[in-house]
Amino acid sequence: MAPPTQPLSINQGTLREQYDFRGFVEACVRNGITAISPWRDKVAACGLQEAARLIKDHNLRVSGYCRGGLFPAATAAERQAIIDDNKRMIDEAALLGCECIVLIGGALPKGSRDLRGAHTMVADGLAAILPHARAAKVPLAMEPLHPMYAGDRACVNTLAHALDLCDALGNGLGVAVDVYHVWWDPDIERQIARAGPRILGFHVCDWLTPTRDMLLDRGMMGDGVIDIPYFRGHVEKAGYNGCIEAEIFSAANWWKKPGDEVIRTCIERYRTVC
Amino acid sequence: MAPPTQPLSINQGTLREQYDFRGFVEACVRNGITAISPWRDKVAACGLQEAARLIKDHNLRVSGYCRGGLFPAATAAERQAIIDDNKRMIDEAALLGCECIVLIGGALPKGSRDLRGAHTMVADGLAAILPHARAAKVPLAMEPLHPMYAGDRACVNTLAHALDLCDALGNGLGVAVDVYHVWWDPDIERQIARAGPRILGFHVCDWLTPTRDMLLDRGMMGDGVIDIPYFRGHVEKAGYNGCIEAEIFSAANWWKKPGDEVIRTCIERYRTVC
Repeated sequence: MAPPTQPLSINQGTLREQYDFRGFVEACVRNGITAISPWRDKVAACGLQEAARLIKDHNLRVSGYCRGGLFPAATAAERQAIIDDNKRMIDEAALLGCECIVLIGGALPKGSRDLRGAHTMVADGLAAILPHARAAKVPLAMEPLHPMYAGDRACVNTLAHALDLCDALGNGLGVAVDVYHVWWDPDIERQIARAGPRILGFHVCDWLTPTRDMLLDRGMMGDGVIDIPYFRGHVEKAGYNGCIEAEIFSAANWWKKPGDEVIRTCIERYRTVC
Repeated sequence: MAPPTQPLSINQGTLREQYDFRGFVEACVRNGITAISPWRDKVAACGLQEAARLIKDHNLRVSGYCRGGLFPAATAAERQAIIDDNKRMIDEAALLGCECIVLIGGALPKGSRDLRGAHTMVADGLAAILPHARAAKVPLAMEPLHPMYAGDRACVNTLAHALDLCDALGNGLGVAVDVYHVWWDPDIERQIARAGPRILGFHVCDWLTPTRDMLLDRGMMGDGVIDIPYFRGHVEKAGYNGCIEAEIFSAANWWKKPGDEVIRTCIERYRTVC
């Protein structure tokens, strides 16, 4: 398969331990990176206006803004507070010029075993923020996370489920496809085709065997068992022509290396194994 | 929901560290357990004939035999050796009087990223052993494992995929439904209904949050986030009336406790939270 033609974007989670927002932007720029995906806590620490200025000064594309959603909660008041916070995030994304906001499902409320109830809370939360997102012209990308996160992080775990939400809620809602979360899915080809123009983001990293930590042991592209070109081929066939975003949470390995080395490795792997 | 009426079976994996096969049988019997699910390595260590005698002497029901399958491999010779070994396992299961053999998909061959190719090897392996299983009157139960095992343990990860294999291969092949592996699946109700009489086993344990080890940190029923009665209700509605099998791999907790305490806890939780 030919190397990618769409730009590499670096997700700030890949360099979480090395840099604050300014340092992250400067490291990306000095290594020739033209697109980034910031995390909200890092933007807040930098200051929203300053972050927007840095992005503009360096003419950076912003492939996504991480991360919103997380709608399920035990009480109506908590759920409303989450909805309000998601609306603020939409305003931030508009100011930063983000191509989409990445949303995840959220954990089961404490003490709850009602997964189907949590699914309903996700649908209700999305419905509550979609008018605000449409008005702000910020597309929402529901990212299904790996099923191992269903209990304590994200209760939307298949692309089929994310697309069912899109079907139900309509314009303004799409999906992010992260190979780490969907690579195991025997139905993924069909679901990517079904997604079509609703694919708003494409994220890459790799699944290591063994995986030593369920959250923070993602691999660099090429170091694991995921056939990344297979997925890129299918999202491109479905019409996706946005950035290829490297998002690698790796507490014991890549977060401990110099940031420039991590970025250079991402670039090399983007060219050779994605 | 009313307590279960079908018998509790204890999977030997629940007491892996406490007992050899004889000790396991004796512990189950003295605690009033009437059904077990042995592991092949423990049976081999005991001696097949001696294991069969113990089962017969104690009039035990054998809800399943763990575990076969694991078909993908790099070479045709390796794949044939695996098929031959599965046939030997079928003969053992017939001698032991097992109600089914539990099969899992197996890992990607070393160095492979071809998940779809591994899926084909699973289908081919099943097709190769099914005539032998039918002749021996030993039903095969394909157990989809949680997607977090797709790379290094079991590449069949949804009940839908397991049932597609059943549809393709026909009589003699069914499924085992383990709540640990399927609880996250938004499509599970529909798939359990689709499975109908092909459900050959129903396994219970619980999903802990957080889960500290991807293989050996399963929870005792009631200690996690799985709504077990929801699943029992659906498999019963689909027509399942076999054993409820407790299978808990718990290296840091239950494997360290006295076996009688573990069995008594299984019985109490079977009555109260399953």
